[in-house]
Amino acid sequence: MDLKTLKAEVYRANLELVDRGLVIYTWGNVSAIDRENNIVVIKPRGIEYDQLTADDMSVVDMDGKLVEGKLLPSVDLDIHLEIYKAFENVGGIAHTHSTWATAWSQAGQSIPVLGTTHADHFYGEIPCTRQLTEEEVTGDYERIVGQIICELFAGRDPLEMGAVLTPGHGPFTWGKDAASAVEHSVILEEIAKMAKLSMDINGGKGLLLPEYMTEKHYTRKYGKNSYFYQSK
Amino acid sequence: MDLKTLKAEVYRANLELVDRGLVIYTWGNVSAIDRENNIVVIKPRGIEYDQLTADDMSVVDMDGKLVEGKLLPSVDLDIHLEIYKAFENVGGIAHTHSTWATAWSQAGQSIPVLGTTHADHFYGEIPCTRQLTEEEVTGDYERIVGQIICELFAGRDPLEMGAVLTPGHGPFTWGKDAASAVEHSVILEEIAKMAKLSMDINGGKGLLLPEYMTEKHYTRKYGKNSYFYQSK
Amino acid sequence: MDLKTLKAEVYRANLELVDRGLVIYTWGNVSAIDRENNIVVIKPRGIEYDQLTADDMSVVDMDGKLVEGKLLPSVDLDIHLEIYKAFENVGGIAHTHSTWATAWSQAGQSIPVLGTTHADHFYGEIPCTRQLTEEEVTGDYERIVGQIICELFAGRDPLEMGAVLTPGHGPFTWGKDAASAVEHSVILEEIAKMAKLSMDINGGKGLLLPEYMTEKHYTRKYGKNSYFYQSK
Amino acid sequence: MDLKTLKAEVYRANLELVDRGLVIYTWGNVSAIDRENNIVVIKPRGIEYDQLTADDMSVVDMDGKLVEGKLLPSVDLDIHLEIYKAFENVGGIAHTHSTWATAWSQAGQSIPVLGTTHADHFYGEIPCTRQLTEEEVTGDYERIVGQIICELFAGRDPLEMGAVLTPGHGPFTWGKDAASAVEHSVILEEIAKMAKLSMDINGGKGLLLPEYMTEKHYTRKYGKNSYFYQSK
Repeated sequence: MDLKTLKAEVYRANLELVDRGLVIYTWGNVSAIDRENNIVVIKPRGIEYDQLTADDMSVVDMDGKLVEGKLLPSVDLDIHLEIYKAFENVGGIAHTHSTWATAWSQAGQSIPVLGTTHADHFYGEIPCTRQLTEEEVTGDYERIVGQIICELFAGRDPLEMGAVLTPGHGPFTWGKDAASAVEHSVILEEIAKMAKLSMDINGGKGLLLPEYMTEKHYTRKYGKNSYFYQSK
Repeated sequence: MDLKTLKAEVYRANLELVDRGLVIYTWGNVSAIDRENNIVVIKPRGIEYDQLTADDMSVVDMDGKLVEGKLLPSVDLDIHLEIYKAFENVGGIAHTHSTWATAWSQAGQSIPVLGTTHADHFYGEIPCTRQLTEEEVTGDYERIVGQIICELFAGRDPLEMGAVLTPGHGPFTWGKDAASAVEHSVILEEIAKMAKLSMDINGGKGLLLPEYMTEKHYTRKYGKNSYFYQSK
Repeated sequence: MDLKTLKAEVYRANLELVDRGLVIYTWGNVSAIDRENNIVVIKPRGIEYDQLTADDMSVVDMDGKLVEGKLLPSVDLDIHLEIYKAFENVGGIAHTHSTWATAWSQAGQSIPVLGTTHADHFYGEIPCTRQLTEEEVTGDYERIVGQIICELFAGRDPLEMGAVLTPGHGPFTWGKDAASAVEHSVILEEIAKMAKLSMDINGGKGLLLPEYMTEKHYTRKYGKNSYFYQSK
Repeated sequence: MDLKTLKAEVYRANLELVDRGLVIYTWGNVSAIDRENNIVVIKPRGIEYDQLTADDMSVVDMDGKLVEGKLLPSVDLDIHLEIYKAFENVGGIAHTHSTWATAWSQAGQSIPVLGTTHADHFYGEIPCTRQLTEEEVTGDYERIVGQIICELFAGRDPLEMGAVLTPGHGPFTWGKDAASAVEHSVILEEIAKMAKLSMDINGGKGLLLPEYMTEKHYTRKYGKNSYFYQSK
């Protein structure tokens, strides 16, 4: 894919977060990677969406150095870079402060699998990473957030679970490309809301989906004998 | 009704779920049946709504075999077929993952009759079926979900109660046609929300509507001396 | 005001309930009265809003008899008529099943004055009437609902408190005309929501607004020395 | 800035509150100050937004006297004036009855720092002022509300914390200009919602953001070594 197309994709993915009601003002950012050329395209920092064009997207190398244009990349760039470095099949990453996913993050809690809507999209509970120490926060903050996420997913296929919560902050999601990362943000927000509502209806406690239901719903969509889509 | 018209109806009914905010991405599906020809029209599986036309709707016989076109029917088809086979006056079926109805489903709880809004549309509590066993889930999953729904409604007029919750999954609704099934999905979502909010206001416990109020409100709309509509 | 104008006002008021998100399908109804001619204009029963024109509004006398056209008036007409008969300064009435006001109704609870938003518009707690007996429900149901409302407001100026909740059912609001009745429905819905949320934040218990704050806020808008509007 | 431009800014800022869903009917008001000429522009009292033009904005001096036109200023004018007098770097002020911020106000509680979304915009908990005495409410009510706000912020840079809650009433926010004040209203509403939801998820108790996280997030945006924006 040429750079112009990738920038257009990242731009559209950023705007979709706004259109879907997950982002206001400068909150949130989406990126995508060109694996052939080791180039990452990401929303520039601190600029509102209605002041941006596709051409304004920041383009950086794997060290975060601008390779084109002059708008500085999102302040969260290093989180994205760490994830891209650790997981080769991740093609796009999204970050939002969407209401319910952020509420779970602020509570420092993972989202248990309480329904098939969850199991259809995420394989297992959506984990919340550990809180950073003061030293880590005053140090290379964003890079360390990224590293903590990667440690948590070490040994797993990150595309089985395209979402993570960072405590006190908010969600990061990813997928094969920028659009898929955004889709995971949208779905995560809905699942985060349903999870809390169903716990409340059930007297405050989640009614865990039986393991075999999780297995069934995830595998009928993404397993080797999946039949959810027209073709595999 | 000719097939072209039925496909247009099912298509519009599917889109209405999106327009009403009950469905995102590929979630949800609506079908309708042509009782004369024993043909069911349903949303094709795993395709987003904005990529579909009325002509793309899948057309199957009562065994689920495609009788036209090549887009595979919704993965939930067998649930629809079981309901059509068991209840002759059901003409349309809808399935969503709408937020509040799904939250009740995830809590595995039936929705009690707490108000006249409920009684105006559904005659009695909206039942939640039993959870499936592992054997049932790894077996003929969707067909068994349909059968469990039908067992629960055996001996009842299904049009008195056009909705059911499946535990850990979400709601199915039905009616005399596709539009009516969708209307029941929309109303169910609102009732599911009101029920929980009113329980919270009442200290966590539902204040049941007196039986005679349920009777009055349902029968003034649908009873033999009904007077809610311009004519019966 | 001539009948044509009154019908247009009532029609617009009904549509505003839909536009404001308080009404779906055939839920809700608005009426207005022509005091000179003792004629009431109201939404016809059981017809959706998008199938109605201003000319379709039902026109009845104080006994509920159609004096024009042939569309039967709202099934709740007798509730409206009782209120018009009891309170001469009421010019319009609205009924909805809006989510939060209905949730309070379903809980059978009055809404206490927890903030100035409430005090700005309603003078005192928004009362919930008593539940009807079985005899009353199987009898002249709608008329008795209206009578119970009127008894509760006997001796008060109904324009000081343009809203009431009926247990298990929902809110009725009124004002000097149809538009004012609708405005009270909209504000009631917002107040009903805020009241519950603030009680939750306060540990489940409402923090009552001091009596002198209620007095101040209501009287700066509607008292004899009011200064909230450009002129009195 | 000339008066015409300032009036246009205040008008647009008022409308944005409506567009963002924070204000209905005549609720809320925004003002801005021209520091050179000691002139304040504010929404006129008791008029709905769709009946206003930019030219209708009220223009007053620091004593609240109209210096142009004839539409009386917002009934809350004295609250605005007290804040402008006390804090020289405040250029715009907004007041709303937005749902969640008002719910916290009605609960009489400050909003603790539970996440980085909060820390990104407000430096510390968003304080709720003390309740007024009866004497204060029956006296020079609005002016005293303003004075109580100013006392609470004495010795602080008000731009570090552009928001306050008044008990039983609602939020006031401010910033360098009218648009910034409105932005703070929008963000406050989102933070107020997230705070309550995250407390509920955490079993009713807020999980405080570590002090060093608050420090980090506020200073990376607004500290002397900030790097959140393209330039400082």
